[in-house]
Amino acid sequence: MNNTARDTKVSQQTNTHPLEELSKILDADMKAVNAMIIARMDSPVKLIPQLATYLIAAGGKRVRPLLTLAATSMYEGEMQRAHRLATAVEFIHSATLLHDDVVDESEERRGQEAANLVFGNQASVLVGDFLFSRAFQLMTEDGNLEILRILSTASAVIAQGEVLQLSTAGNINTTMDDYIEVIKAKTAALFAAACEVGPVIASSDETAAKAMANYGLYLGIAFQIADDILDYMADREKLGKTVGDDFRESKMTAPVLLALAKADDKERAFWERVITKKEQNDGDLEQAQAIFEKHGTYDETLKLAHHYGDLAIKALDDAPDGPLKTQMIALVQYSINRES
Amino acid sequence: MNNTARDTKVSQQTNTHPLEELSKILDADMKAVNAMIIARMDSPVKLIPQLATYLIAAGGKRVRPLLTLAATSMYEGEMQRAHRLATAVEFIHSATLLHDDVVDESEERRGQEAANLVFGNQASVLVGDFLFSRAFQLMTEDGNLEILRILSTASAVIAQGEVLQLSTAGNINTTMDDYIEVIKAKTAALFAAACEVGPVIASSDETAAKAMANYGLYLGIAFQIADDILDYMADREKLGKTVGDDFRESKMTAPVLLALAKADDKERAFWERVITKKEQNDGDLEQAQAIFEKHGTYDETLKLAHHYGDLAIKALDDAPDGPLKTQMIALVQYSINRES
Repeated sequence: MNNTARDTKVSQQTNTHPLEELSKILDADMKAVNAMIIARMDSPVKLIPQLATYLIAAGGKRVRPLLTLAATSMYEGEMQRAHRLATAVEFIHSATLLHDDVVDESEERRGQEAANLVFGNQASVLVGDFLFSRAFQLMTEDGNLEILRILSTASAVIAQGEVLQLSTAGNINTTMDDYIEVIKAKTAALFAAACEVGPVIASSDETAAKAMANYGLYLGIAFQIADDILDYMADREKLGKTVGDDFRESKMTAPVLLALAKADDKERAFWERVITKKEQNDGDLEQAQAIFEKHGTYDETLKLAHHYGDLAIKALDDAPDGPLKTQMIALVQYSINRES
Repeated sequence: MNNTARDTKVSQQTNTHPLEELSKILDADMKAVNAMIIARMDSPVKLIPQLATYLIAAGGKRVRPLLTLAATSMYEGEMQRAHRLATAVEFIHSATLLHDDVVDESEERRGQEAANLVFGNQASVLVGDFLFSRAFQLMTEDGNLEILRILSTASAVIAQGEVLQLSTAGNINTTMDDYIEVIKAKTAALFAAACEVGPVIASSDETAAKAMANYGLYLGIAFQIADDILDYMADREKLGKTVGDDFRESKMTAPVLLALAKADDKERAFWERVITKKEQNDGDLEQAQAIFEKHGTYDETLKLAHHYGDLAIKALDDAPDGPLKTQMIALVQYSINRES
C-alpha cells in the first residue's frame, strides 16, 4: 500500500482523532493522571525521575491510561480510583518499554534517542524495575484484590510474551498462531487489563468486565498488527521513528509471515538468508519492502488487523451508549490506520 | 585479615551452621517452599523455567525465604501462608539477581557462569520481569494488603538502591553514609520485609513487626558488608566465586571507603586512577588487596559489620525465646564470618 492509499483510508474512516476526543471528554481526569504520573515517578535518587521523565514526559499516546479512564467513566466508577490505577497501568507499560529498549537495542523511541542509549542499559533496567514496583504500590494503595489479580497476571503474561517472542525471532517456521499468541501476550494483555479495571472499579457485573477485557484484548491485537506494519513503512523516518527494527532483529511479524506464504523460490531464499541465517546487507530492508508491495502484503496485514478490530467493536455491543463508546469504536479504526 | 584469622574467628563464634540448623527446624516448611518455587516458576514458555531453574535450582542460601518461615513460626503464624510469601520473597530476590547480572555484567553467580552469559541479556531481563510479576501474583493470592504494601515498598526501595549505587560507582567522594544508604536499600530492605511478613501473618502487634523488620534490616546491612569484603578475598576463586567484580566496576564499598580514609598520597593517586579515571591494569586488584592488608582494612570492615550485627541481635531482645531465636542470633555471626 502506498502513502496515498493509506491517507485516503484514514480520511474515509476517521474524521476525528479519537485519542484527542477521549482526552477532551476526560480532560480533568487525564490532567489528574498526568499530575500523578509526575508525582509518583519522583524519587530522592534523581536519576530515576530524570530517566522516567525522559521517557514518559516525551509523550507517547497515553492509550492505556485513557482506556482505564474511559472504561471506568463508562460504567460510572469512582474516577479518583481510576486516576491511581491508570497511573499504575502507564507505569507498567513504561517499565516494559524501558526493558524492551534494552532487549531490542532500539535506537529510537517516541522520536528521540532511546533511553538506554542516553542513560545506559543498567539505568534503564533498574528504573524499569522502580516503575514496576511503584505500579504495585499504587495498586496496593487502591486495595482492590481483584484489580491486583488482573494487573499482576497481565504483567506475568507480558513477560511470557516477550520471552516467547525471543524464541520465535529468527525461526522461519513460526506460524500465524504463534505470532498472534506473542502479540496477545506482549501487547494485548495490558490493553485488556487496562479496560477490565474500569467495570471492576464500578463494581459492575462480570459480563461488563468480560466485555471490556475483550474490547481491550482485540483492540490490542489490532494495534500491534498495525505497529508491525508501521515498522516497515519507509516514510516513518520523517516522523522520527526507526524503520526496520523488527527486520534487523529477524522478528516473525505478520507482514513477514504473510509474504512468506506467497514466496517463490527466490524470495524464500531471501527470507531464509535474512531470518534464519541473520545475514543482512545494505538494501535488504528495501528488498523486503518491495516484496511486500509486490504481494499486496500491507493490505493483507491490514485486513488481519481489521478482523481483530471488528471483534473489538463487537465486544462493545452491550456497553452503555454515549460519546465514550463512540470514541472507543473510532479508536479501533484509528489504531489500525494510524501513521505513528 | 588472613585466612587463618578468619577461620579461627568462625570456629570461635559459630560452632554450627545456622542456615542448616534453621533448615532442619523448618524442614517440612522449606520442602514446601522449594516445591512451590519449582511449581510457580513454570510456564508454557519453556525458556522461563529453563532459565529460572538454572538460577534458582543452582542453590543459593535461601536466606530470605528461611527468614520469612522463621519469623512466621516464631510468632505462630499460619505456615501455609508463609510458604507462599517465602516463595514470593525468593522470586523478588531472584529477579533482582537476574537484573543485577545484566547490569553488572558479572561472569559468575553461585559458582557457575551467570545466567545472562548462558541465555543472553534479553532473556535475563524478561525472566526477571516474569519472576517479579509472579511474586506479586503470589502476594495477591495471599490477599493481605499490609504484606502487599511491605513487599511492594521493598521492591521500589531495592530499585532505588541499585540506581543510587550506579550513581556512586566511580565517585571517589562517596561517603560512608552514602554507602550505608545504598546497601540498606539494595540488600537490607528485602531482608527486613522478609522478616516483617512473619508477625503480620501471625497478626502480632506492631512492636513485633517492627522488631522483626529491624532484625532483618540490620542483618541485611551486616550481610552486605561481609559480601563486600568477600568480593576482595582472593581465595574465593577456589569456591568458584568471581573475585574483584566490585573493584572492576569502581564500586565504592566499605573496604575501599575505609582504605581511602587512611591513604597516603601515593595510595590516593592509585584510588583516583582506578576509581575516578577507571584506568585499571593487570595487578591493580592485587595492589588494592595489599593496601587493605597494610591498613588492616578487612578487620576494620568486619568491625563495621559487627556494629550492625549487634543491632540485629538487640532487635531480637523481646522476641519469643527458643531454638529459632537462638539460630537467628547465630545467623548474624555466620553472615559476618561466612566464606561464601
